[in-house]
Parts: sequence; structure tokens; C-alpha cells
Amino acid sequence: MSAGSLEALRSLMAVYSPPLDALIVPSEDSHQSEYVSDRDKRRAFISGFTGSAGLALITMNEALLWTDGRYFLQATQQLSDQWKLMRIGEDPSVEKWISDNLKVDAAVGIDPWCVSVDTAERWTESFSKNGQKLIQLSTNLVDKIWSDRPVAEVHPVTLQPFEFAGRTVAEKLKFLREKLVQEKANGIIVTLLDEVAWLYNVRGSDVSFCPVVHAYAIVTTDSAFFYVDKRKVSSEVHSTLAENGIEVREYNTVHLDVSLLTFGKLTSLSAAENSHEEEVNDNEEFVINSGQVDNEALEKGQLIWIDPASCCLALYANLNSDKVIMQQSPLALAKALKNPIELDGLRKAHIRDGAAVVQYLVWLDDEMQKIYGAAGYFTEPEETHKRKHQETLTLTEVSVSDKLESFRAKQENFKGLSFPTISSVGPNAAIIHYSPEAGTCAELDVDSLYLFDSGAQYQDGTTDITRTVHFGKPSAHEKACYTAVLKGHIALGNAVFPNGTTGHALDILARVPLWKNGLDYRHGTGHGIGSYLNVHEGPHLISFRPHARNVPLQATMTVTDEPGYYEDGNFGIRLENVLVVKDADTNFNFGEKGYLAFEHITWVPYQKKLMNLNLMTPEEIAWLNSYHSTCREVLAPYLNDQEKDWLDMATEPVTAKA
Amino acid sequence: MSAGSLEALRSLMAVYSPPLDALIVPSEDSHQSEYVSDRDKRRAFISGFTGSAGLALITMNEALLWTDGRYFLQATQQLSDQWKLMRIGEDPSVEKWISDNLKVDAAVGIDPWCVSVDTAERWTESFSKNGQKLIQLSTNLVDKIWSDRPVAEVHPVTLQPFEFAGRTVAEKLKFLREKLVQEKANGIIVTLLDEVAWLYNVRGSDVSFCPVVHAYAIVTTDSAFFYVDKRKVSSEVHSTLAENGIEVREYNTVHLDVSLLTFGKLTSLSAAENSHEEEVNDNEEFVINSGQVDNEALEKGQLIWIDPASCCLALYANLNSDKVIMQQSPLALAKALKNPIELDGLRKAHIRDGAAVVQYLVWLDDEMQKIYGAAGYFTEPEETHKRKHQETLTLTEVSVSDKLESFRAKQENFKGLSFPTISSVGPNAAIIHYSPEAGTCAELDVDSLYLFDSGAQYQDGTTDITRTVHFGKPSAHEKACYTAVLKGHIALGNAVFPNGTTGHALDILARVPLWKNGLDYRHGTGHGIGSYLNVHEGPHLISFRPHARNVPLQATMTVTDEPGYYEDGNFGIRLENVLVVKDADTNFNFGEKGYLAFEHITWVPYQKKLMNLNLMTPEEIAWLNSYHSTCREVLAPYLNDQEKDWLDMATEPVTAKA
Repeated sequence: MSAGSLEALRSLMAVYSPPLDALIVPSEDSHQSEYVSDRDKRRAFISGFTGSAGLALITMNEALLWTDGRYFLQATQQLSDQWKLMRIGEDPSVEKWISDNLKVDAAVGIDPWCVSVDTAERWTESFSKNGQKLIQLSTNLVDKIWSDRPVAEVHPVTLQPFEFAGRTVAEKLKFLREKLVQEKANGIIVTLLDEVAWLYNVRGSDVSFCPVVHAYAIVTTDSAFFYVDKRKVSSEVHSTLAENGIEVREYNTVHLDVSLLTFGKLTSLSAAENSHEEEVNDNEEFVINSGQVDNEALEKGQLIWIDPASCCLALYANLNSDKVIMQQSPLALAKALKNPIELDGLRKAHIRDGAAVVQYLVWLDDEMQKIYGAAGYFTEPEETHKRKHQETLTLTEVSVSDKLESFRAKQENFKGLSFPTISSVGPNAAIIHYSPEAGTCAELDVDSLYLFDSGAQYQDGTTDITRTVHFGKPSAHEKACYTAVLKGHIALGNAVFPNGTTGHALDILARVPLWKNGLDYRHGTGHGIGSYLNVHEGPHLISFRPHARNVPLQATMTVTDEPGYYEDGNFGIRLENVLVVKDADTNFNFGEKGYLAFEHITWVPYQKKLMNLNLMTPEEIAWLNSYHSTCREVLAPYLNDQEKDWLDMATEPVTAKA
Repeated sequence: MSAGSLEALRSLMAVYSPPLDALIVPSEDSHQSEYVSDRDKRRAFISGFTGSAGLALITMNEALLWTDGRYFLQATQQLSDQWKLMRIGEDPSVEKWISDNLKVDAAVGIDPWCVSVDTAERWTESFSKNGQKLIQLSTNLVDKIWSDRPVAEVHPVTLQPFEFAGRTVAEKLKFLREKLVQEKANGIIVTLLDEVAWLYNVRGSDVSFCPVVHAYAIVTTDSAFFYVDKRKVSSEVHSTLAENGIEVREYNTVHLDVSLLTFGKLTSLSAAENSHEEEVNDNEEFVINSGQVDNEALEKGQLIWIDPASCCLALYANLNSDKVIMQQSPLALAKALKNPIELDGLRKAHIRDGAAVVQYLVWLDDEMQKIYGAAGYFTEPEETHKRKHQETLTLTEVSVSDKLESFRAKQENFKGLSFPTISSVGPNAAIIHYSPEAGTCAELDVDSLYLFDSGAQYQDGTTDITRTVHFGKPSAHEKACYTAVLKGHIALGNAVFPNGTTGHALDILARVPLWKNGLDYRHGTGHGIGSYLNVHEGPHLISFRPHARNVPLQATMTVTDEPGYYEDGNFGIRLENVLVVKDADTNFNFGEKGYLAFEHITWVPYQKKLMNLNLMTPEEIAWLNSYHSTCREVLAPYLNDQEKDWLDMATEPVTAKA
């Protein structure tokens, strides 16, 4: 991005009809994805800020970028003088800023493919109070000035077999059609990439780190469509889809088909051929439910279900708004509730992943001692270290994270990383979503905390883990902070709670030990994780912000437990495990609600040297020793003798200090 | 209430124009009060259920009563066969029930004086989906059949002097008028009884337990009115009010004056006489703010502020709905933030109240030993007790609570109780808001837990405390439950949290130790408490339900900390202290938000015999010993030697078991 880009964009805004007073450039692609392909990184192109979340607003004389607490520091570093950082949660929202700063009847442009119905409605309502208007653009203005925009790549669609998916496409379609009947809907438009992949048991590599395919799905009570670049679909995949009554159509025809759907005129070839009629009739329960459809609603028109939080405005505009059911996609919860085969895969993937992380720590411990003369992972030296490294041999944030990837790559079912590895030394770790780059990244440092947050895509499960370690002498303050983070991590992981409890209610458990010291962190505490799918998935989450959809935690959901503490300019600490929600084994069951608890599935030790045991309760210490003992047990089969010895030391029980 | 009442009511419903298919009878009076005077207890009269919260619905062939978890058991016992109990949180809401069960276009009657604007709007919207209508009745049908309805009593209005109120009426009116200017409102209608009492520094005794006056206030930028039965206002009170520019008008003229207000025609005699003009002009800040009033809004009509959660439909109906500002009354938060004089009074009142409770416990311990041969408060006997009492001497739930009141009555500034004392033995304590009645109440029992939840009105502060005790041998289960409740009570009381945190977020801290065992309680965890005002006051609260208004906790607010556990048919446990929110003294101040903590102001020991110390952490035990040590210190001046000896034993430090 050069300074000229903004001026070029403003010229296009000025000649647009109507002339635009402002242009909103969101992070998201046409599927409201969190991670997007390079050609969809329009907001990063125009602003220079590369974080995964953010929104740019360009007016005729200002340029503003909104992002959340994970990225305040990174954005400060990446944004040029032309840009102003707007801190979500502290500064006014984009709609408030527009109301307060743009003229009455200002025209604000947006690419209707890159904004959800919910967001567009919120903006429209807010703008209208001032006579301001949201203008749906017929073309993406950023694309027009982005001369070297990457071309679309053609990656093959693969099948996720039953041994990993755990449910057939037929079962999933049956479930979905039951939901359609329940809600009296004739069809549903599925726009989220991971929902399409989950529904049709397909995977791809159209987006780095996310094994998804750029595709839409439309499912009606008697047909199913898969909108994708047909060059990506092999004849084998084509025929497997066809066996499930799924018709493959060109990606860019979805817009037209939504119009046909609105008028009840979207028919599949297979339906015409009755090729899967038998299958549907086979399904007695479905047929019975079919009988409950409200005939009046059917006669009046085609009721179409969209999820307004993810369906883009461009597709919604082709629907008859009187005939739209706007509510959360039924696939969100269905995908979040992992089946036994998925849970088994996730557990196994996390054990192999934990072994790779331990191998990495053993290697790193050795290198830190050899290259820098560090005291090492286990020894707490008397003095902080006066660093002396050999000129020719250095460890950098990027080189060590490459090594970590190489350990993972040797594991069975490895497919790639699940997000850009955060490998950060000292003050860099205070940039919550720091992404080191070769050439500019920092060198490892014996006297600094080192934080790594990373994960992989295995065909049997997606992983995500964070550990923070020190190879020299941590300060008392660093130890106190590490211990507070660990206490919060343990408190949340050990929680028992009744059915109906949301992650929002639990969030505080991870913060209380930090709050006691006036400390906190500016990010949520947990997110769902996919089964060889996105590393961040909903619909639940653990956050201090009440979630609009407020989905309670339910047995078989996955969720991370990742409190942290970040001191700008000094260091960052985060500890993260993946948990599975399970039924709790309580003595009582007050209110007959059923109680839930968590199962940890991540297995990598915490560094004992960083703990101030005086600050830990006997209960916390007992939990730590028990967790470490399981680490030893489950990881040993994947480690060599040297690694096993290291792990034995790392997991030796601790006792509370007198 | 006799079975005939329902039939008489149905006859009136049938002949009403239009004929009513259902009648809603809420608990509240014309001020949406929680506690109401006897003549306003219409819902109790018609249903027989006497709890403080509940709503009755009478249709032509059914009668239903909705209440919350505190009252499920009591309602079951009090409702006759004619009534069906609807459990809030488990059964459908009243509007859902009406939609599902009454005919399309059903007419549902309500007295518009007894329902808030918010509730009426919610019902109207819900009913309209079915063509059902909410009918505002011109008369209260329950009053028509209530032949022996108590007459209105005439209790004098008293002044709350500055030494207790801590702020003058002039200061409060200045603050309120600044808020009016900020919101561009011409006037506000204050309908909540405690807000009127707080604003005008008056008190009364129109409602048992609440030192309030049946009154409304209307305040405009240049006038102030007090609508009250004029017979209650002495000439002294009258002249003090007049000095503050407050004009006293008849209670039942408020309706007409609201109409005048709407058209900008409500003028005060005093304004005409310019009697307080000088005072207003004196206030420079106010005059400057006045300049910011939106003249356009002023010209178009009189903007009137009401709080839709408490203003009744009858008054709202006289306003021009285009000219109404509907938001929380600014007095709610102002009243909740206690000034230094109020805080000082509350602290002192709670010390005297604690002394009275300790005197009561000493007396009760003695009586239990003398009359029943109990092992007593301190001794844990080997065996459960085979009770043997003297025929002529018995202690009942009511007789002992009368004794408790007598100890309080001896304390300085005592004005009465702050709510009906809950004095409950064994299974009665599982009825969360149990109210014993002479004649039918239970006798004290050496082998049962005894719970008492009580408080008083002192002129310097309102109190509210719960303790649960045992004079014989508690079971291991009872001790485990008591310990879990105590752990939750301590965890909440010891919390440190950043500004902006709501009571909803903190609520879980009190439940986690119970949840670990699959236990819970069906009520909130804390409520604000008045300064010689209502024992329950908002706008904040600590509850598992997210609160619509979601007011964060702020320094100088009061709030109770009262987790419990209730086992139907067996026992109930609750522990309650009053806390004051204060600035926390943390080492750090991450995010520059400022951190808050709680100060306990209730001082009565917890019973050590009921604790299982093995289940408590060293931190909890240290807190307990420190709390007990303060109890000794602050209560001693109010106790005689025997009582001091008892308190010394009760507060002797405990040590964790090996």
C-alpha cells in the first residue's frame, strides 16, 4: 500500500454515482470469514494493518481503522500517519463516528458482498437518524485500484471421510431438512465456509490455515446445491456428492439461483430425474414431519432461512424480505456439538500435537543453552544472564517457529498449521496477535519471556495451544503474573456449572486472580475449535462481553481456556488449552438441570520455574500435579528417551512451600 | 379470600364492556412498589398467596399464579385447588400462556394504575400477534368485590434531617434539573416511593417496613410538586418543603397535573410568586447548562421524562407519547451512590444491629440449652439429640423473632423492621421467603438448622442480615452445604474487579463452590439497600439473570452478599452480609480503569461448628479469622460481660485441619 492508494480511492469515491463521502472496507470476504484468502485482504491492502480483525473507513480527508484489544499495539506500529487507530471498546463505534462527524445526508459506500445483513441493518438504522445513507456499491472500489491483486487459485475439493467426520452427509442433510420443516422454511442459504464444508463433508485449501472451499450451499426440502468453481471438483468428488443428491453449480451463479429460490423456481437436475427420491422417502421420520408444514405459508411464497449474522447483503437483496426467516443457522450448533468419532480424533490429534510441542521445547531448551549459555528450562540462575551469542548461530522468532512446524509436520495426519504461529520474545509478546516476519523479527533472549501460540490442522482434528516459557532468570513480577494467569486458567478449567450457563458467565473465573492485582487482559477467554476445520468456531464463546446469541455451553462442545496478561513494552503471558465440555459427576443434581465440567485435551506441561507456589492453593497444586502426570502418560509413546527424560523432569510433582 | 371471590370477579368480568376473557392482577400498587400497604394487597386477597412477588391471571375457567423461585414452596402451600402455580423461569410467561391458551381477539383487563409502561407495552405487543387486546380498566374489579378492604390510613410525613440524609433537597433538585437540561427534558414525573422520599428528604409510614409516603413528585426546570394526602403534611413540613420551592398538592390530582404538564400549563404558585427564583439564578452551572436546551424541541412541545419500568400506564396515557423521554430515572443511580454521611450512618447502624443479633444469639443459645437441653452453639455432641422440652416453655419461630425485634428495638435510632423477619426451622427454611405466623409456626428444634433473615430501619441506615445456626449435632451433609455457601459468600465478598463490571458478572463467584457439588439456589445473590429507605433498592443487583439495565457496580453503592442452599422438605441455609463497594488498593491498574472491592459492614460471627474446615482454603480461613476479629472489636462496646464472653468464643480463630 502506498500513500497514493488512498488518493486513488478517493478519486473513485468522488466520481461514483452518487458521490461517496465515505467508504467502509471491512476485513471479511463474501462469506464473512475471519481468515480470508490473499486476494480478499482488501482492508490490509488499503490500510497496511495485517491483523485478522479490523474495519477501515476512508472519508475525503480522513482514514480510520477500528480494531480490538488484541491488535492495538500491532495497529499502532503498522498504520501510517495517514491513518487514525480507533480502539473498539474505548473509542466510538464506526456508526457513531459517522453520525458525529459526517454531514447530514452523507453517502457511505459498502461492497454488499462483504457485509452481513445484521451489520448493514445496524448501520442503515444508525445512519438514517441523520439522513445519512448506506450505499450498496455495484463494484468493489478497492479492487479497482489494486493493480497487483492476487488471482484466484484453483485448489481441489477433497472429501472428509466418515472415519474422521463421524456423520454421513445423508444424516446431516436429514437433520437440516428436519430443521427446515420445524421452522416452516422451504430452503436455507448456507454462506459460512466452514458450515458448507461440514455439511457436505468436504475440505479444501482456498484459505490459508482453514481447510475450507470457497463455496455456498442451498438446501431445500428436496434438493441440495454446492456453488463452487467447478474446476476444483474432481469426477470422484462429483459423483460422491451426486450420490447424496447434491448438485454442483458454478460459484458465481449463486446470486441468480437465490432469485430463482425466492420464486420457488430453483429446481435441481437430480430432482427432475428423481435420482434421490427413494432416499428421502426412506426416511420415515422426515416424511412424517413434512406433514406439519404450514400449507398457508407454503402457498403464499417460499420461506427462505438465512443467518443474518453471516449472510451477505448482496444475496439478501435478492430475497423477498417478507419471506425470510432470519435466525442463526442450525448448522452452527450442530457443528459445535462434536460426535464421538470427532471427539476421539480431537483427543488423538491433541496428544500428537502435544508431543510435537514437547519435542520443540526439548530442542529449544538445548539450543538456548548451547547458543546463548542459558541456564535452561529447569534451572533458575542466581543472576539475570549477560547474553553472549555466537555470531553465526542465532535463533529468531521465525526460525524457531519453523522448527516447531517441522516437529508437527512429522506427526500423522498433519495437513498444515491452523493459524499463523505467534512466536514472540519479550515485548513482542505484548502484541496479543503478533505475527513475526523473517528479517524484522526479534532474536530469542535468555532474559525474556517467550510466548508461542500455535496449532495445526490434522485430518482428525484441529489444535491450538499457548505456552509461555523462560530459559533464564524470570523476575518476581513475571512469576507473579504467570502464576495469576495460571490460577485463572485452572479455575476456569476446573469449573462445574449447570446446563444453561453461558461462556460469558464463566469468563470471570479466569480473570479473578488477575483482578486481585489490578491486572486484566483485553481479549476473550475461549473459542470453539473445529474438527479439521476453522480454529475459531462458534456459536458459543467465553467472553467478558455478553454475546448477542448467548448460546449456553453444552456437552461435547470444544472451547479454549486462554487467559493472559500483557505489559506493553515489557512482556506477554498466555496459557491456552483446549477443553471439551462433558457431563459432570456431581454428588447432587439440584434443579434437575444436569451439571457440566471440562475435560482438558491439550497435554503439554506448564513451566514450574515460572510459578510462585506461595500464591497457589493446595487444590491448584494438586490439579497441576495430576495434569502433569497425565502429560507423562499420554505423550511418552511419541517421544524418544532424551525427550522422555526431559518430560519426566518437567512433570515432576511440586509441593506447596511452607 | 373465599372460593366465592373468584366467581364474583368473573361475574364482573363478564358484564364489563367489552366483556373480559381474562383479568391480570399484579402485586404492585400505583407506584410499582415491591412491598405494598394492606389495602393494595389485591393479588394476595384474590389468590391467598401472600409472597411479596407474584401475578395472578383469572380467566373464565382458570386461575393461575406466577411467582419466582423464592416462593415456589410457599405458593404450593397457600394456593387452593382453584389455582395453578406457574413457576417463573420454568413455565411459560403470562403473555406466552395467554397467546397459547386464550382465543384470538381475547380481551385481557388490567388496572392501568397497577402496571408499568414497559410491562404494558410488552404485553400489548405480544397479545397483538394473536389479535388479543390489553384493556385498560376504568375501575379496579378486585376492589369492587373486596368488601372489607382496609381503608387508607393517614400517617404523618416526617423530615429526614441533613445529619442523616447527607445532602440537602436544594442540592438534589439542582442535580435533577441538570439532568433534565442534559436530556433536553422540561420535566420529570417521579413515581417510585423511595425516589420521592429520597428527593425531598421526607419519610413516612404508609407501607409496612418501608419508611415511605404514598406520593408522587413532578419536577420541572422551574417548579417542584409533591402529590400527597395533605392531611399527612404538618405545617412545619409544609414550610420546609416550601423553602425548597416544593408545592404540596393533593395526591389524587397528579393525573390532572400530568395532563397540564403535557401542554406546558403546569405552573406552581411559588413560581408565580418568584419565591425561589433567586435560588435558581444563584446556581451558575445550572444557568449555563440551560443555554444548551434544544429550542426546537422546546417549541414543539413539553418533553417529559418518565421511567417506563416504574411509571404506571394510567399516568403515561395522559402524556403525548411523541414528547416522552423513556429512560431510567436519574434518581435511581443518584440514590444508590451513598454520600459520606449516609455511609457513616449505615456503618454505625450495622454495628448496633450486629450487637442486637449477637445478643439474640446469646439469649437463644441459653434458652435452647435450658429448655431443650441442647448441647448449644459451641458444642458438637456425639449423638443427635433426643428432644425433651418442658410442656410449659417453648420457643417458636414467631416468639424468638419477637425477641430478636426486642433486642433491636433497644438500639439507638430504631424505627421498626425493614421487612418481615424470616425465622425458620428445618424444612421451613427451604421456603426461601418463609414468613412464620403465630399459631401455625414451628417450634425450635435442637436437631435442625435454624435460619433467620431479618433487618431493621434505623434513622441512620437500613439493615439486612442472614445467619444459619445449629444448637445440636449438624449432619456431615449440612456442614458440607453450609461450608459451600460460606465459601461462595467469602469469594464474592473478597472479589476485586474493574470499574464497568456488573453484578451479573460477579454472581457466579457465589455459586461456584455449590456448583462443584451439583448444588445451586433459585434466587439472586445481592440487592442494594437504602439509607433509612427500602431494604431492596436498585438500579444494580447481583444476579444470574442479565439485567436489562445492566448498571455496573460503582464505589459507594451498597449491595448484599447472600448465597444459599435449600433442600425441599429438609433444611435451608443462607448467609448474608451487606457490602459497600469501594476503590480497591491494587498494586497495578491495568487499562487505567480503576479497580473496586467490597467493604463488609455487617458484623455477626459465622458458626464455626457448621464449617467443615477441610473444605476451606487457607485464604478463606484467614479471611474468616480477620472478619471475626473485627466483629469482636466493633461489637464489644454494645455488649455486657456475658455477651462479650460468648462473642470471644464465637470469634476465636480457627486453624485449618491437617
